[in-house]
Amino acid sequence: MDEFNENVSMNTESKNERIKTGIEKLDWMLQGGFPTKSITLVSGTPGSGKTIMCFHYIKEGINQGEKCIYLSSDERVENIKRQATELGFDFQHAIDNGQLKFMYIDLDKTGIHKEMEMELRIGNYSRVVLDSLTPISEVPVWVSGIHEVIPSEGTDKTKDFPVGSIPTTRIHIKRIMSMINQANCTALVTSEVPEGSRSLSRDTISEFLVDGIILMDLDTTMDRRKLTVRKMRATKHTLKPQDITITEGGIQFL
Amino acid sequence: MDEFNENVSMNTESKNERIKTGIEKLDWMLQGGFPTKSITLVSGTPGSGKTIMCFHYIKEGINQGEKCIYLSSDERVENIKRQATELGFDFQHAIDNGQLKFMYIDLDKTGIHKEMEMELRIGNYSRVVLDSLTPISEVPVWVSGIHEVIPSEGTDKTKDFPVGSIPTTRIHIKRIMSMINQANCTALVTSEVPEGSRSLSRDTISEFLVDGIILMDLDTTMDRRKLTVRKMRATKHTLKPQDITITEGGIQFL
Amino acid sequence: MDEFNENVSMNTESKNERIKTGIEKLDWMLQGGFPTKSITLVSGTPGSGKTIMCFHYIKEGINQGEKCIYLSSDERVENIKRQATELGFDFQHAIDNGQLKFMYIDLDKTGIHKEMEMELRIGNYSRVVLDSLTPISEVPVWVSGIHEVIPSEGTDKTKDFPVGSIPTTRIHIKRIMSMINQANCTALVTSEVPEGSRSLSRDTISEFLVDGIILMDLDTTMDRRKLTVRKMRATKHTLKPQDITITEGGIQFL
Amino acid sequence: MDEFNENVSMNTESKNERIKTGIEKLDWMLQGGFPTKSITLVSGTPGSGKTIMCFHYIKEGINQGEKCIYLSSDERVENIKRQATELGFDFQHAIDNGQLKFMYIDLDKTGIHKEMEMELRIGNYSRVVLDSLTPISEVPVWVSGIHEVIPSEGTDKTKDFPVGSIPTTRIHIKRIMSMINQANCTALVTSEVPEGSRSLSRDTISEFLVDGIILMDLDTTMDRRKLTVRKMRATKHTLKPQDITITEGGIQFL
Amino acid sequence: MDEFNENVSMNTESKNERIKTGIEKLDWMLQGGFPTKSITLVSGTPGSGKTIMCFHYIKEGINQGEKCIYLSSDERVENIKRQATELGFDFQHAIDNGQLKFMYIDLDKTGIHKEMEMELRIGNYSRVVLDSLTPISEVPVWVSGIHEVIPSEGTDKTKDFPVGSIPTTRIHIKRIMSMINQANCTALVTSEVPEGSRSLSRDTISEFLVDGIILMDLDTTMDRRKLTVRKMRATKHTLKPQDITITEGGIQFL
Amino acid sequence: MDEFNENVSMNTESKNERIKTGIEKLDWMLQGGFPTKSITLVSGTPGSGKTIMCFHYIKEGINQGEKCIYLSSDERVENIKRQATELGFDFQHAIDNGQLKFMYIDLDKTGIHKEMEMELRIGNYSRVVLDSLTPISEVPVWVSGIHEVIPSEGTDKTKDFPVGSIPTTRIHIKRIMSMINQANCTALVTSEVPEGSRSLSRDTISEFLVDGIILMDLDTTMDRRKLTVRKMRATKHTLKPQDITITEGGIQFL
Repeated sequence: MDEFNENVSMNTESKNERIKTGIEKLDWMLQGGFPTKSITLVSGTPGSGKTIMCFHYIKEGINQGEKCIYLSSDERVENIKRQATELGFDFQHAIDNGQLKFMYIDLDKTGIHKEMEMELRIGNYSRVVLDSLTPISEVPVWVSGIHEVIPSEGTDKTKDFPVGSIPTTRIHIKRIMSMINQANCTALVTSEVPEGSRSLSRDTISEFLVDGIILMDLDTTMDRRKLTVRKMRATKHTLKPQDITITEGGIQFL
Repeated sequence: MDEFNENVSMNTESKNERIKTGIEKLDWMLQGGFPTKSITLVSGTPGSGKTIMCFHYIKEGINQGEKCIYLSSDERVENIKRQATELGFDFQHAIDNGQLKFMYIDLDKTGIHKEMEMELRIGNYSRVVLDSLTPISEVPVWVSGIHEVIPSEGTDKTKDFPVGSIPTTRIHIKRIMSMINQANCTALVTSEVPEGSRSLSRDTISEFLVDGIILMDLDTTMDRRKLTVRKMRATKHTLKPQDITITEGGIQFL
Repeated sequence: MDEFNENVSMNTESKNERIKTGIEKLDWMLQGGFPTKSITLVSGTPGSGKTIMCFHYIKEGINQGEKCIYLSSDERVENIKRQATELGFDFQHAIDNGQLKFMYIDLDKTGIHKEMEMELRIGNYSRVVLDSLTPISEVPVWVSGIHEVIPSEGTDKTKDFPVGSIPTTRIHIKRIMSMINQANCTALVTSEVPEGSRSLSRDTISEFLVDGIILMDLDTTMDRRKLTVRKMRATKHTLKPQDITITEGGIQFL
Repeated sequence: MDEFNENVSMNTESKNERIKTGIEKLDWMLQGGFPTKSITLVSGTPGSGKTIMCFHYIKEGINQGEKCIYLSSDERVENIKRQATELGFDFQHAIDNGQLKFMYIDLDKTGIHKEMEMELRIGNYSRVVLDSLTPISEVPVWVSGIHEVIPSEGTDKTKDFPVGSIPTTRIHIKRIMSMINQANCTALVTSEVPEGSRSLSRDTISEFLVDGIILMDLDTTMDRRKLTVRKMRATKHTLKPQDITITEGGIQFL
Repeated sequence: MDEFNENVSMNTESKNERIKTGIEKLDWMLQGGFPTKSITLVSGTPGSGKTIMCFHYIKEGINQGEKCIYLSSDERVENIKRQATELGFDFQHAIDNGQLKFMYIDLDKTGIHKEMEMELRIGNYSRVVLDSLTPISEVPVWVSGIHEVIPSEGTDKTKDFPVGSIPTTRIHIKRIMSMINQANCTALVTSEVPEGSRSLSRDTISEFLVDGIILMDLDTTMDRRKLTVRKMRATKHTLKPQDITITEGGIQFL
Repeated sequence: MDEFNENVSMNTESKNERIKTGIEKLDWMLQGGFPTKSITLVSGTPGSGKTIMCFHYIKEGINQGEKCIYLSSDERVENIKRQATELGFDFQHAIDNGQLKFMYIDLDKTGIHKEMEMELRIGNYSRVVLDSLTPISEVPVWVSGIHEVIPSEGTDKTKDFPVGSIPTTRIHIKRIMSMINQANCTALVTSEVPEGSRSLSRDTISEFLVDGIILMDLDTTMDRRKLTVRKMRATKHTLKPQDITITEGGIQFL
């Protein structure tokens, strides 16, 4: 890692409260951590380490005595816990004493948005992980009533937003982001990037609706893993991809 | 920055009134600033600095004693103000004394076009920021009655413009541009460019309907940020991407 | 500019009448100018100089005492005139004495095709500019009655041309070209090329329906503007992109 | 042109009758000309010289005393004749004495397939040009009755071929090719290739339904024009693009 | 051709019966020929030599005294025979004595699948050529009754497979492959690859449903033709593209 | 193969049970084999060796005395067995004594999901192969009842998930993965990658729903085959593509 912010002239820490990421070098890159009350998108291809980034974040929260929730779209919650354990993150104690909650967002059930919103409102969580945003944002929703009419001949016919269209997806994601914002927490939201795509999310919209973007990537030819801070509100940061490794204990900067 | 316009033979400042951009070097690049009564598209990928460009523009307006409005499609207006504050743009005083208005364009509400139009008509604003055009232009609208019929067998059946189609989007954006034009102001309009796209907007149409285009870009591999004046009416300018940095105080040319 | 046609063996000027383009070097490239009664497509990305090319063409017409019309799909006709003035093209006198007419093609109105056709038929124009073809060709039209049936079981059911489809767009553009042809004029028709596309028009069809194609392009990395004569009926011309600059006075060859 | 077939061991001219192309060097490349009764696709981007290739072909036919027809999808037949004249192909005498017929295929009219078929059947033409196939093949046609049913539960419901789909287009083009075949002629059929496409036709199907393919191309950067024999039935030919120029007198090999 | 399998340690010829391809060098590449009872896809762009590969295969069958059928989707069966004759493959004697049958699959007729199936079932063919699979697989078919329902609220509504969709095409091609399999023959099936595509068939599915894939390609810039054994069941083969030429007598390895 | 994990500091084998892959070098790469109870996606283009990887896996299971099932979407089960035999995998004994079951998933039949689920539930299999997931996941399914409504004007209209859409495919694949998970087995699931795609599956979703991803690839120009461990839960592994060969006896690392 080069000296990308050795001359940080910006005295933002006085203005911005920071919340530690759980990875020391990343805190240093981000001038102390994520801005509090921010939402950061963690984007990446399969196996790039998005979920492990979330484990660090949760672990740090537990260490700080904060209340945390891990919203998962993967029904195999036991699998996630096991994966965490395998990497040396032991969450069981925190789960037992109520400091950490794992919650499965069952896409097969009606009312998941209300359920999430309610949990976030009453849970008083300091740290929220949503892993991942992509399947939830894909659930077809129906939006109506906001269609502006530009009449040229006096008609006032209205149409629904097409299900699955860009504007519907945008409104849907905005709604999810809004839930998280109102929970007064700092959040990590993971996002799928299909292999071979240069986009920052499958939907190509999420990245415009968050405060920060961390891109996880891997280069099989060179056998390297990369972490790039693509955007972070109120933070002077390098744009340079950083070499990382995933080992016992999780993500390590090289 | 190279000496791209040292021999400016065009004496346009006498013919064209200019409005300062809030960034000294950019004013110099643009022969004094944006042409008055012009609309400039500020396009870029997430985190490229589009909103910060708008902060400079508004700040300059405040300094000049002009009346300004910041139309936002992001409901978290407090967030935008905080972001401005974090970067050293303090807008509170101007808001308090009525010189600056932040207005949230709620896509969930009917009538946003009328509301915007009314505000622009009565507000007597000198500077307008629309951040961003993309979600507003995506709101499905219904357009009818203008379909030309080329009959070959005497029928006169008409069809609606397909919602979300290129022509509907064009008419929609033209309508928004028209509102701004009639407000007798000089405007910055931000526009989303999906990562990996070479386009100048998500819709690929906006860039044909404005007086100027400024493209914000970032190159993570080289850890560089770029600003390119892609087009500016009545202005002799370089096309060369300029190196910039985003630091406390906003955008700085290198 | 290299000596691309110094050995022009083709004595076409005797057979072909030419109409000057308004740019001396371009006239020379085209063996005297555009072929009379031809339609030339001026294609390009935003800010590439398509409209300025038209200004030269109109200015030359005025100087030659010809009757000219500028059909615009941009409602801000004042804006176009101002832009011309800023570049040193003063059209006001020609407008006042009836030699030049600006006509706004309002896509929101029914009957624009008839209106254009009528104007062209009665106006007796020598030079026609249509700036730009793209939005007009996008207006949904309804075409019917020409569907050939290849029956295999004796049915004779017919279907309409799908609105917005390639064949409908082709018939629509052919119809517009036909209007211009019947006006007995020489025409420039501008066409949008989305940034990043290698196509010669947004519709990819127009370029097959014209006599000439001039491609305007810009290379921001190299800070260069290019003009390429891609096709010109009955004219031996170089295919090589020519370096141009846009300055006070309009397009200049380097 | 390199010596691509100097050692032609294939003594095909004895087996295959040939019909001269009208371009001497091309005849030599094709071992005497096009195979008689063959259909050759002449594909290319706008301005690549497809129509001029057809002029040579027709001119040769006239010189040989053969009966020729030029089927055009461009209503401006006068324009085509003028273009021919400008290039030094004078067809008027042949038209006057009935050796050459120009026929406009009006896409706006019903019954164009029948009309073409009838003309080809009764005209006894030796050489046929169809310029171009693309707009005709785009005319929506309705095909029915050939849908195979793979029932898994005993139903026998059938569906129409979707208008504009690949299979419908294929059947349509096959039908057109069939008309030409039954006319007992040798044909050139031009085909549009959109700029930037690597395909051999806009429809990507025609090239699989013909006996020969000649690709016309141009490279603006190098200011070069190319002609490639991509396929020719019963002919040993180079695949190498050949440099050509278009000058007074038409296509010349360099 | 390099020594790609000189150290073949695999003694598969004892286990696998082979059927000669008709091209000696290819037999050697494939350890004796195609595996008996296999289906090999011969894919390629237009003019790449797919049909000629089939001629070799049929000719070899005739020489071996095997019964052969050539299923063609090209109505011009005479044309195919002539093309074979021109290349030195004389099939007439075999046709006359009933050893070889040419059968035209008329896409305009209902019942082609049944007709093919019946012919294959009763014909007792040792070698089958299907030239080409692509148009047949494009014929819209209707498939029903296999839709699994994942009910979340007790409904059991079913939907048809969309005509022309990936799953319908897959089932269709599987059905055709199944016909061939049940005929107890060894088959070559040709497949169209559109120019510029890197796929192994137009449908992108066929290649997953066969035992072998031979890709025919041509490189016009280098004036070279290539044949690549992309896959062959139970055969150790090089993946390297082999240089070939097409001359009198058909395909020759260089 | 380079020394990619010689300094493995991660003592995961104590925490993770492993199941041997059947390929010694791969076991070594994966710190002992696949994690037990994991699902690994084996992705690749046609002929890349996906099925052979499964043969190794099954063979190892038989050797270990485990109960195995091979779910095939290819009706030609005899073909698969023969292919295994040809490569030296003799499964007949294991089939006869009930240790191995081949089961054909007939996409033409209703109820395949229930059938699979039942078989997996009652079979008590230790090793499951699903070859391949792609055609099964393409079977149109109907999903309903989970659509969240974001009402803005009080309506509560719901819509179905579109058949074949991304969210429907995701739910479908999740359902299949869920079946496998509940069977308490360790599974290999093969997945088609169309040639020329950089994706990890045709659907671009499967790879986000599994514990491990192995990518099989081939480079015809270099005549090389590659195997890449793209992801493996709880396993420190190289990302570097490994050179392999397919020979008698199956996959061998070079």
